[in-house]
Amino acid sequence: MYKITPWEVSGDIDYSKIVKEFGLETISEHLMKRIEKHTKELHPLLRRGVFFAHRDLNWIIDEYEKGHHFFLYTGRGPSGHTHLGHILPWVFTQWLQEKFHVDLWFQMTDDEKFLFNDKLDLEQTRKLAYENALDVIALGFDEKKTKIFLDTEYAKTLYPQALKVAKRLTFSTAKAAFGFSNESNVGEIFFTSVQAVPAFLPSVLKGKNVPCLIPHAVDQDPHFRVARDILPKLGYYKPASIQSVFLPGLRGGKMSASEEGSAIYTTDSPETAKRKIMNAFTGGRDTVKEQKEKGANYSICPIYHYYRQLFMPDDKELASLESECKGGSILCGECKERLSKRVAAFLSDHQHKREQAKHHIEKFMIRD
Amino acid sequence: MYKITPWEVSGDIDYSKIVKEFGLETISEHLMKRIEKHTKELHPLLRRGVFFAHRDLNWIIDEYEKGHHFFLYTGRGPSGHTHLGHILPWVFTQWLQEKFHVDLWFQMTDDEKFLFNDKLDLEQTRKLAYENALDVIALGFDEKKTKIFLDTEYAKTLYPQALKVAKRLTFSTAKAAFGFSNESNVGEIFFTSVQAVPAFLPSVLKGKNVPCLIPHAVDQDPHFRVARDILPKLGYYKPASIQSVFLPGLRGGKMSASEEGSAIYTTDSPETAKRKIMNAFTGGRDTVKEQKEKGANYSICPIYHYYRQLFMPDDKELASLESECKGGSILCGECKERLSKRVAAFLSDHQHKREQAKHHIEKFMIRD
Repeated sequence: MYKITPWEVSGDIDYSKIVKEFGLETISEHLMKRIEKHTKELHPLLRRGVFFAHRDLNWIIDEYEKGHHFFLYTGRGPSGHTHLGHILPWVFTQWLQEKFHVDLWFQMTDDEKFLFNDKLDLEQTRKLAYENALDVIALGFDEKKTKIFLDTEYAKTLYPQALKVAKRLTFSTAKAAFGFSNESNVGEIFFTSVQAVPAFLPSVLKGKNVPCLIPHAVDQDPHFRVARDILPKLGYYKPASIQSVFLPGLRGGKMSASEEGSAIYTTDSPETAKRKIMNAFTGGRDTVKEQKEKGANYSICPIYHYYRQLFMPDDKELASLESECKGGSILCGECKERLSKRVAAFLSDHQHKREQAKHHIEKFMIRD
Repeated sequence: MYKITPWEVSGDIDYSKIVKEFGLETISEHLMKRIEKHTKELHPLLRRGVFFAHRDLNWIIDEYEKGHHFFLYTGRGPSGHTHLGHILPWVFTQWLQEKFHVDLWFQMTDDEKFLFNDKLDLEQTRKLAYENALDVIALGFDEKKTKIFLDTEYAKTLYPQALKVAKRLTFSTAKAAFGFSNESNVGEIFFTSVQAVPAFLPSVLKGKNVPCLIPHAVDQDPHFRVARDILPKLGYYKPASIQSVFLPGLRGGKMSASEEGSAIYTTDSPETAKRKIMNAFTGGRDTVKEQKEKGANYSICPIYHYYRQLFMPDDKELASLESECKGGSILCGECKERLSKRVAAFLSDHQHKREQAKHHIEKFMIRD
């Protein structure tokens, strides 16, 4: 049993069930080859199935091949600092931007996080949005092709478009898609209308339809299912999308902002990150002896998934790690030490770029 | 039986029942005297009970007497051209502004009329809002003390404040106040949050609480009941309000935009207005003979209410008309002819001012 909505992920997530229940398509070999034809290589997140499903990605490639370029749309709900799980779809989005030379619209839903979180006020979610924007920029997005905006600061543009979506969406439908109750607040109920807007805003602004591709963690899918129903009624294309799995929490299970040590934040010091890694749950055995004899289980190990999703792009190296782990020739302590070094190197580089981003953030931000 | 919501008024309206059901207070002699102390005279709409109920108006006067001035807030849902029923609360609001020397915030809910009306798009409701604004300005509001805005054009300011209201309002409560169903669209459900904002926006902008008085036709009361519940939770005053009855339709019953001849529009020619008046339902008898003998019933007569509410401010003149009518010494044709002249004079003057308003509308409009 699992539950997955944009605001709650719990239970044992079965991604193959999600594909079926959400009505997604898996990413075929043929589709990967079509992508590779244009990108020359396949991003590890793609060839390893971290991005595991899609909607209408073949159509995006069809249009691209006709010279009809898409734009990318993704975003962030600024409820706290950025952790490594958040940047996973952004890393992939940056790669897509670079390989396809396309625009990115990046939405900071400061309104959403205010509406859905009793403990946050709007000043806090705005501040966090700017903090999170530094992480986005640090990942190397093209300043000429990337627009980052906060919903509350871009409301004069977004609100009238959101009204068009809202007019087509009944409470019944919103309730079925998101699990609202009669006690949900009216802002929560309205909000998905705002999240739908960037999927067609470039079409509005250009006065002609532009295909949209949304890379996102799979929990956001209900928003885009709703958008796909409504946008054609407004005369726009259905947005295409590509879904990633979650980076697991270091304490086992899902990553949780409320569980200490479960996530590594981009603002963590290398020492803090190392401590979290060294204290992490693994797929190891109870004793060194047992592990040396029987090997460990990397498939359930968050440390392994950190390597696989973010810190070991070389497939041969990863295969070798897998066999070391399975064969019992590497112990968890050693494996964690190695990861800590890679994470420390990433953090040091990222934090430097994050500081630099403070000087040119205004080149990315758009407001009314 | 009657039904009264911001979007539907039907049945036989019993204003004394409304006072009870809505939890309003009637306007006492004592309160009228308190007002008169400051205004030197009482507006006919007040002394004749066309504004018949209020909430917290005594508090507004208390604060005013302490030197703590209120601001006025009213508005218009731009679903069509302005008719004489619409201007009734505006005429009174203009008088309040003049007598108390206070600011007015005038909201054009182009978002609302788009959301609640299948036949209107946002371009149409925006255009109508500008048309309606000309009528507002033509009534003589002080250009230094009056701000008129469209929700969609002022959304960067309004939307973040509306979110604060929305977060405190559940679907249950909105449903109970407005009669929403599961088939209501999510924009309709959210909308009252936007209508609440002008009641506290001046407090936000000034950084201190300012009392708010809302003159409005009684059908809008559910919005302000909701606002009164929520604003104190956000640290603002409950808005005070004063409610008017409706100007009746010329064809009998309520005024209806869809019933030809039921309303006189400010853009009607004097000839059109005269035709509508001459074709109106009255409180007259079936035959001249009968009317001369028994007199007519002015209380049910829309022609009489046009005089009483808008076209005969002199109480002695009105009393004399009442006795002529009751005594059968004036027939409906004659009475209609006299009204037509007054309406023609009003329209000619108003239309002239309305044309002039086109040249200085920008002094009134605010946008982000």
